[in-house]
Amino acid sequence: MTKRDFLALEDWGSDQVEELLQLAARVKRGEISGGLERKVLAMVFLDPSLRTRASFEAAMFLHGGHAVVLEPGKGSWSLETEPGAVMDGDRVEHLVEAARVLGRYADGLGIRAFPRGNDWVVARRDAIVRDFARHSEKPVINLESARRHPCQALADAMTLREKLGETAGKRFVLTWAWHPKALPTAVPASAALAAARLGMEIVIARPEGYELDPEDTALIRRIAQQAGGEFVHIIDDPDEALVGADAVYVKSWGSVKLYGRPEEEAAQRSGLRDWRLTPSRLRSTRGSRGIVMHCLPVRRNVEIDDAVLDGPNSVVVDQAENRLHAQRALLLELLGSPS
Amino acid sequence: MTKRDFLALEDWGSDQVEELLQLAARVKRGEISGGLERKVLAMVFLDPSLRTRASFEAAMFLHGGHAVVLEPGKGSWSLETEPGAVMDGDRVEHLVEAARVLGRYADGLGIRAFPRGNDWVVARRDAIVRDFARHSEKPVINLESARRHPCQALADAMTLREKLGETAGKRFVLTWAWHPKALPTAVPASAALAAARLGMEIVIARPEGYELDPEDTALIRRIAQQAGGEFVHIIDDPDEALVGADAVYVKSWGSVKLYGRPEEEAAQRSGLRDWRLTPSRLRSTRGSRGIVMHCLPVRRNVEIDDAVLDGPNSVVVDQAENRLHAQRALLLELLGSPS
Amino acid sequence: MTKRDFLALEDWGSDQVEELLQLAARVKRGEISGGLERKVLAMVFLDPSLRTRASFEAAMFLHGGHAVVLEPGKGSWSLETEPGAVMDGDRVEHLVEAARVLGRYADGLGIRAFPRGNDWVVARRDAIVRDFARHSEKPVINLESARRHPCQALADAMTLREKLGETAGKRFVLTWAWHPKALPTAVPASAALAAARLGMEIVIARPEGYELDPEDTALIRRIAQQAGGEFVHIIDDPDEALVGADAVYVKSWGSVKLYGRPEEEAAQRSGLRDWRLTPSRLRSTRGSRGIVMHCLPVRRNVEIDDAVLDGPNSVVVDQAENRLHAQRALLLELLGSPS
Repeated sequence: MTKRDFLALEDWGSDQVEELLQLAARVKRGEISGGLERKVLAMVFLDPSLRTRASFEAAMFLHGGHAVVLEPGKGSWSLETEPGAVMDGDRVEHLVEAARVLGRYADGLGIRAFPRGNDWVVARRDAIVRDFARHSEKPVINLESARRHPCQALADAMTLREKLGETAGKRFVLTWAWHPKALPTAVPASAALAAARLGMEIVIARPEGYELDPEDTALIRRIAQQAGGEFVHIIDDPDEALVGADAVYVKSWGSVKLYGRPEEEAAQRSGLRDWRLTPSRLRSTRGSRGIVMHCLPVRRNVEIDDAVLDGPNSVVVDQAENRLHAQRALLLELLGSPS
Repeated sequence: MTKRDFLALEDWGSDQVEELLQLAARVKRGEISGGLERKVLAMVFLDPSLRTRASFEAAMFLHGGHAVVLEPGKGSWSLETEPGAVMDGDRVEHLVEAARVLGRYADGLGIRAFPRGNDWVVARRDAIVRDFARHSEKPVINLESARRHPCQALADAMTLREKLGETAGKRFVLTWAWHPKALPTAVPASAALAAARLGMEIVIARPEGYELDPEDTALIRRIAQQAGGEFVHIIDDPDEALVGADAVYVKSWGSVKLYGRPEEEAAQRSGLRDWRLTPSRLRSTRGSRGIVMHCLPVRRNVEIDDAVLDGPNSVVVDQAENRLHAQRALLLELLGSPS
Repeated sequence: MTKRDFLALEDWGSDQVEELLQLAARVKRGEISGGLERKVLAMVFLDPSLRTRASFEAAMFLHGGHAVVLEPGKGSWSLETEPGAVMDGDRVEHLVEAARVLGRYADGLGIRAFPRGNDWVVARRDAIVRDFARHSEKPVINLESARRHPCQALADAMTLREKLGETAGKRFVLTWAWHPKALPTAVPASAALAAARLGMEIVIARPEGYELDPEDTALIRRIAQQAGGEFVHIIDDPDEALVGADAVYVKSWGSVKLYGRPEEEAAQRSGLRDWRLTPSRLRSTRGSRGIVMHCLPVRRNVEIDDAVLDGPNSVVVDQAENRLHAQRALLLELLGSPS
């Protein structure tokens, strides 16, 4: 029997995702208690976190388990991640040993590793998360890598269902927003994949130069078609994009083409501050009632205006809450004792 | 039904504080177990902590619950705290979202936020702790703000009672001490308020220029009078102050008038190193047996001499222990299931 | 009744260590559950950790307890460790108060404090760990000091037994390795002491100038003799050392003689990169089957080659796993309720 990891939503079959979502709904309704007694989750954060850390700690605790948090380079040893490295520099411990050892102390591992380095060809491999999975004998959960944030995707799918009811054919608009930094594409890709799984019509609005990784775009298209949805199109106008939207997912991300070239990227994005979700733009959603989603943390009045975030269309806090329930379901599925 | 916060001792009625103190005494005697099963406390530390962190973690655990610790700017995202900010700078997440989201993962929040900025008119509003309370749908506990440290105050009241028995009319001397840094006034104000609640005679000894915030002084006076105590007076002599003291509370704090002007403040304090609790000064307390209190951390041989801290009058470790018991009572009251 | 600390393996009698090892084996076989309900361990890390932190947190949890982690100078106050210090500098809290207060919140303390300062005469006293033990009213566990790492020693002894069966008379080779930094001697001294306790023949291989502290060498010799083992000899050749080894313990450490003189130490070690465990060297162990041990973190391809660490002789991951079981036994012994 091989262990199961949760590195990307698309690694799991649609039946399996469907089961997770149904279990998450039952968890949220309070129908499930226990199931993780004496279970330990070891979380390795190479990058900061609020929701992921707090919700996984709470999730483990609520079912009788415990989460250990490690921060390499802070309280824990800095990690070498290159296979075959001659470790005579600053990095103290190799990922291989961290993965193997934590697999002995814990029943599952969670890893957060944002993209590193200047080369997208390298970063897009998600090597850190995948190498942890390769070397750990216990299930590994991706807590956000360069390419994917599958726990967010799960919460996003759960939220879309809760808010929209039947999702098939409804319009999901992923819209780019300006941000002072070039952020990873893990969340936008994962959110669009989640919506595609739900059979929604997918619109991606972004300025020229902000295409997602082509393989991700192709995958979103393929999954949407499999699920009976439609990959409507890619739009470069922040107003036109929102017309008729049932759900607006706002997110900033950096240019994949200019990955690792921050000055050129900053120059390209300099004229794009108008890509921001304002109350007036919100009025072009379906019946002015399109829900507004964001993975958080959000730059207020930069990505989304205060009036939108604090208004009735915003579901960002419910969406964040669903991280907890979706992850409780995931943990029960991956680490839980058969009940 | 509205939620209850614990932001300042004076926000709670004297009956409510009395109940907390009695519950804390029962907790300390080992009469209460459980009560926080499946409850989560999310603690947000914008500043360091030893006692608060360790005692709250232990308190939650001892009654079946769990505390999650977040450190914005370290393992967690840096927080923007200004309402309406256009977040295009370094701060990644707004307090509003942190408060709302943590309110979904946890049953209560604890926030530590020392004074920030150069303007006392602003800092004295305790905006960070109060905004967390405003935006969280769950109870918020002040883990020390610019103005108040109510958990310390609760432990102080508990300690005064344990050590002095009947407190009414006994003499409580809050005495300033020199320190290399200008510290907040949260602890001295809160301690004096606690002693006032207990009907004690309050003496505040400090050098000229080290008056507490006038509103706090007025509040201490008013509460002392209501409780049947007497606000004796304010003294500027470190020797005279201790005469007849039943309890000596040593604490350094910065000049409120020179808040945000560190060079002038340092110049003013430069001649005041003599404000230190020595064994000889201790002899002028009532029967040489006045108890010595301090919230810790204490600068040994700067605020208080080794011989005093390690001698029989010092109750600082019992006082620190009472943080645990007082907070267990508080958590049971705020988050506990009705038993 | 006085409390028991666990500061060095040699502080405990051989019967007591034997009991611990037998309890650890039972724990590993899953024969013991519970025993630490409502027990709190406060861990103070002055230096980084992966295994120690994760395994102690897991150990406490698995038996119903909870570990609190504090990092002075990061999330917690910086510690002054000098007795009698006039604390007018940067350090905020004295070790004395930290030890006393944590002894009130917790049922046991764990302290990690690597060597500090430039003087081995001072560092070798292990003052920080010993002062915590002196001032805490609860048991103190050494999580690695300048001189000792007794929890590692316990796991090492357990691993040697598991892998070698009868250990008496088998050959244990502690071999120095090159490393970019001058590391403490706590692990090599503790490992050799553990092997000596098991009645093994001890070989220590190191280049000239890398002798252990003479007192430690004498102690290893004495314990080996008491246990019926033999202190074979000290060798300065990395090839000859391995001949006939049943267990090879690879570890780098800094020159005790040049402690606090990093430039001279670096010059002395510059020619010694050949001290590295390679597959070909491994072939001179007994039947080519000598087990390879290391406390981790290990510098891959600097201390030990990938082919060795990933090959069949390496037991480093089992050894790390045994930290968990050995510490569960230790915690049950020190903090556990009588069952």
